[in-house]
Amino acid sequence: MKPDASESDIQRVIEVVEKLGFRPHQMPGASRTAIGITGNKGAVDPTHFENLPGVADAIRVTKPYKLISRDLRPEKSVVKVGNAEIGGSELAMIAGPCAVETVEQVFQVAEVVANSGAKFFRGGAFKPRTSPYAFQGKGEDGLKILAEVREKYGLNIVTEAMDERGIDLVEKYGDCIQIGARNMQNFSLLKYVGQTRKPVLLKRGMAATLEEFLLAAEYIMAEGNYDVILCERGIRTFGTHARNTLDLSVVPAVQKLTHLPIIVDPSHGTGRNYMVNPLARAGVAVGADGLIIEVHPCPEEALCDGAQAQTLEQYQELYTQIKAIHSILTQEEMTIASA
Amino acid sequence: MKPDASESDIQRVIEVVEKLGFRPHQMPGASRTAIGITGNKGAVDPTHFENLPGVADAIRVTKPYKLISRDLRPEKSVVKVGNAEIGGSELAMIAGPCAVETVEQVFQVAEVVANSGAKFFRGGAFKPRTSPYAFQGKGEDGLKILAEVREKYGLNIVTEAMDERGIDLVEKYGDCIQIGARNMQNFSLLKYVGQTRKPVLLKRGMAATLEEFLLAAEYIMAEGNYDVILCERGIRTFGTHARNTLDLSVVPAVQKLTHLPIIVDPSHGTGRNYMVNPLARAGVAVGADGLIIEVHPCPEEALCDGAQAQTLEQYQELYTQIKAIHSILTQEEMTIASA
Amino acid sequence: MKPDASESDIQRVIEVVEKLGFRPHQMPGASRTAIGITGNKGAVDPTHFENLPGVADAIRVTKPYKLISRDLRPEKSVVKVGNAEIGGSELAMIAGPCAVETVEQVFQVAEVVANSGAKFFRGGAFKPRTSPYAFQGKGEDGLKILAEVREKYGLNIVTEAMDERGIDLVEKYGDCIQIGARNMQNFSLLKYVGQTRKPVLLKRGMAATLEEFLLAAEYIMAEGNYDVILCERGIRTFGTHARNTLDLSVVPAVQKLTHLPIIVDPSHGTGRNYMVNPLARAGVAVGADGLIIEVHPCPEEALCDGAQAQTLEQYQELYTQIKAIHSILTQEEMTIASA
Amino acid sequence: MKPDASESDIQRVIEVVEKLGFRPHQMPGASRTAIGITGNKGAVDPTHFENLPGVADAIRVTKPYKLISRDLRPEKSVVKVGNAEIGGSELAMIAGPCAVETVEQVFQVAEVVANSGAKFFRGGAFKPRTSPYAFQGKGEDGLKILAEVREKYGLNIVTEAMDERGIDLVEKYGDCIQIGARNMQNFSLLKYVGQTRKPVLLKRGMAATLEEFLLAAEYIMAEGNYDVILCERGIRTFGTHARNTLDLSVVPAVQKLTHLPIIVDPSHGTGRNYMVNPLARAGVAVGADGLIIEVHPCPEEALCDGAQAQTLEQYQELYTQIKAIHSILTQEEMTIASA
Repeated sequence: MKPDASESDIQRVIEVVEKLGFRPHQMPGASRTAIGITGNKGAVDPTHFENLPGVADAIRVTKPYKLISRDLRPEKSVVKVGNAEIGGSELAMIAGPCAVETVEQVFQVAEVVANSGAKFFRGGAFKPRTSPYAFQGKGEDGLKILAEVREKYGLNIVTEAMDERGIDLVEKYGDCIQIGARNMQNFSLLKYVGQTRKPVLLKRGMAATLEEFLLAAEYIMAEGNYDVILCERGIRTFGTHARNTLDLSVVPAVQKLTHLPIIVDPSHGTGRNYMVNPLARAGVAVGADGLIIEVHPCPEEALCDGAQAQTLEQYQELYTQIKAIHSILTQEEMTIASA
Repeated sequence: MKPDASESDIQRVIEVVEKLGFRPHQMPGASRTAIGITGNKGAVDPTHFENLPGVADAIRVTKPYKLISRDLRPEKSVVKVGNAEIGGSELAMIAGPCAVETVEQVFQVAEVVANSGAKFFRGGAFKPRTSPYAFQGKGEDGLKILAEVREKYGLNIVTEAMDERGIDLVEKYGDCIQIGARNMQNFSLLKYVGQTRKPVLLKRGMAATLEEFLLAAEYIMAEGNYDVILCERGIRTFGTHARNTLDLSVVPAVQKLTHLPIIVDPSHGTGRNYMVNPLARAGVAVGADGLIIEVHPCPEEALCDGAQAQTLEQYQELYTQIKAIHSILTQEEMTIASA
Repeated sequence: MKPDASESDIQRVIEVVEKLGFRPHQMPGASRTAIGITGNKGAVDPTHFENLPGVADAIRVTKPYKLISRDLRPEKSVVKVGNAEIGGSELAMIAGPCAVETVEQVFQVAEVVANSGAKFFRGGAFKPRTSPYAFQGKGEDGLKILAEVREKYGLNIVTEAMDERGIDLVEKYGDCIQIGARNMQNFSLLKYVGQTRKPVLLKRGMAATLEEFLLAAEYIMAEGNYDVILCERGIRTFGTHARNTLDLSVVPAVQKLTHLPIIVDPSHGTGRNYMVNPLARAGVAVGADGLIIEVHPCPEEALCDGAQAQTLEQYQELYTQIKAIHSILTQEEMTIASA
Repeated sequence: MKPDASESDIQRVIEVVEKLGFRPHQMPGASRTAIGITGNKGAVDPTHFENLPGVADAIRVTKPYKLISRDLRPEKSVVKVGNAEIGGSELAMIAGPCAVETVEQVFQVAEVVANSGAKFFRGGAFKPRTSPYAFQGKGEDGLKILAEVREKYGLNIVTEAMDERGIDLVEKYGDCIQIGARNMQNFSLLKYVGQTRKPVLLKRGMAATLEEFLLAAEYIMAEGNYDVILCERGIRTFGTHARNTLDLSVVPAVQKLTHLPIIVDPSHGTGRNYMVNPLARAGVAVGADGLIIEVHPCPEEALCDGAQAQTLEQYQELYTQIKAIHSILTQEEMTIASA
């Protein structure tokens, strides 16, 4: 739509799309609204739309993904998560323990995270564990602790759901629903979360190609939930010096093809305490919109993923360093933009 | 338990396990019954059991997987699927189209499959597709067509479910519930299918290590469903000449560590029509308990995965060849056994 | 060339190619001779050749590899190695120790190999070792022992060379020069071995795509040595249950695209003693022209790769089994051919 | 050795090592000299050394790599390349075209590189190409052009050699001998370059584990050449959005285990023009000692790897950005050090 298109112009287009039997996807942006169309078999005749008032252009997206594409919406999406944003000019820091264990553990971390200036808190109440005999998370009790963190520290809660019941609960207690790497192609779950109206943090599968990753996001958006944040968390390769191989090249690739924000998870991406800080720095330098970092008051006692958790002190040092790098990038961009 | 343990001996052990607050898993075999114990934290004192009547031995399984282990049950499991078996001396052939499309298509294939002597029929009613805009399967209508195949041709139906509703439906219409590669670590789904009493065909995830694969089976068994059949369907590597890299080395590895049957899927494992026959031969030669093969009356018109489907003629030739190879292996084993 | 083309017809074409400033590659086959042309930039005008006497057809090979292509030579190549052949109707068995250690060790294996009916003997005198501090092979002394094996047991010697000096020595003492996986893209070495007139066994690199593998063979042939045998020996993946992942799908792929023979190495391809036999069976069943197997009289004392070596007894059992499978395939082919 | 050990103390230790029949490796550092010992089978009795004058400690290195290890030499190595250094506090920028094509092309790039303040120039005279029919480099003529660059612009020359003749030539004309990824396990070449006294830039193989990479460096050092610089240039994975997957986690891993400098190659590491700048930023942020970047005056006309070359303007922008990020890191370190 044109920047000056009126609300009734937009509604008019939506009605036409619906009359044709297709599904309209209204995606408002800072200056312009894009309207995606899905449900069509084969190409849609653009003459249906291009002369309607307020319509700037009718573009056919030939890529397999439509709604996430820069072709549909050239400007970058900024996703509102609770009272903050991911994808804007500020770097999003999501920090917290791997798993919610106790109120004390969670509050101890949350206090440091809140004081550092970060706006998002992570912590798992439902834990996807390789073994059925490993700690599976505290479930709804864990979510209640996270809700207290929001109330007490003003942090926005990002937490994983593994099934429909979990999504219903996270929708109730949290601010952002995380879909984990192992569920990236759990298509039923993607459709279900696409019907909620909470933002979704979608992690890349361990063996997902870029196209599969993007189409997983498309699954969510095709159901009407356009608030998707992508997350690179390492892929599986032959390498053994790190738990996964963090593939930072996916960041510029996602930014070239899509309007979605993308963040980096150096904790799962490396699985090694001493690698988290350098790879966090690299994640910011490559241009990610944020980081998700595991922090534990006492990593060696963590019920899950202790080997990769940062101590409270390490977290503070890390955040200081990456803010400095992020400010360099922002200045650079301003310099380039003003040149 | 000893071969001559009575039913009441077995019940006695089960009661003791339950009294200790643990979960007993009774797994009868051809000659002996094994009773697995889960739910314990730390080692269980073997003196609780070893002097009970009928008990042969109390063994601690130190591997991360317990119930699937050869340590618990040294003899191979034979899984009953409908009126036939997988894991016994006969090679199991599961053949049929990728997706159920029409009654005609399905019956045309089923007739050839039944006439060939195969006992299992495959066909997807719920299709996990990379794109939300691709054909997603016919759902319950497709399952009804498959149920007709069983009635008309006497074939046992193996078909995929992607979520809890799907599992309920496949339990109703089919004989074996397939869990696809993308859901291999959908732990909620594994737990749910573990509570059914239909056999489960569990496909290896594209990036699953052997241990992750085995622990996924353990998730199902820990819920009480011991009828699990594993399936190698190719892993993701750098290679591009085939759609996936069929990892046949996993067959002897599974057989060494577990008592579960394992079959091979050369259709998804290669994704190329001309490779299916040679890799099917290799799958039988490596010692798999069966094959799952995609067959379509007209591959170039298939709604899904046409590039890898065998024609009806190709299927017949393939089955003839692999039966010959299988008979060689069986003779060899007999020769070795009688030596 | 036509089947009835005379030697002077062939010479005439060769002269024309040379006059144009290109390089002719004369590749005689069972019924027809093919003449490849390299050294041209851009397409060569076919009218230079197509009306010359004896010329059947002038075909432009548009693939990146030319001389190895089925387009140039539709019939399969049979490579003469010493007094035997690889690529014909008989399965080629190349067996022997990883490394030449002592005369006794080598002769003990050679006797069993010769008695089994195999025609080729392997054994390394130059060993590419990951660590500079590991046993590097016996060098020329080892080659002399291998030469004695040929004399005493009538076995044809296949052995690796790692550099130019090594190639000169293997050319002198052996029957087939092996280029190892780590040197598959050592292009200087490929050019050098392409200038010898001994057959070359080229192993696929651990991370080589099919195209890179084929172009490595093309490097050798472009220098005038057309006696190349390919070997699949496992690729590097995330898997850890085997040392490498044996990629048997490369066998039908190579056979579709090229006229070269291809064999399989289940010893390096798995790195596990108990997997060698099943994967050897699979390699034969998939249609390979032969196998290369490590055999050691006492694997636990081997100076190199003991974990994968077969004992003498295991080797004998393995060879019996695979011959049975190979005869099935040969019968099948005859049945199909006569149908 | 102790910081105040005299030259004669050092010589004394070396003599003792030689008398024992082992090889001493004298590795001087800023404050202390380390003396490595190789050639021993089994452990060496430390009492031979620990009471000699000037000896601080006799340490057994139990890792498979010895001379590269931090255990042997705790302080970081700074390698002198021509008149500059790699591994010190200054970021090393090595820039230039993929291949030397013409004097004009090379000088055009060299002028920009020299003006930017970079101290190293890259450019290939010997090109390892996948196809035998692709441009193979200008050979010695190319090296002569590079030698002119050094003379005219004062840049230190880093260029690849593929075989022994090439090493002799690069030793004559260049300042640093590059061993390419495909030759990382060409052990004969590693030994040969280990006998030169020019610094070596060793690129990680496409499928090399960290340990294999480090042992390749150890091969060079075991021959007496201790001036080795490592280079991460991307590994082979299933991903296709970039040509390789740049594995930045190897940088902290190398720094933890070894005293060697490591640089990053985002050009080969991504193979995509638009990814080079972000991944160069990430490489610096992760803590690499330098970058190697392909620059071409006209990438679309490059004879080799044009898709990844930066234009002259892109290079200048990139260098400005990464210097800013590097200065942040250096400040951080100073802050931490002074805290």
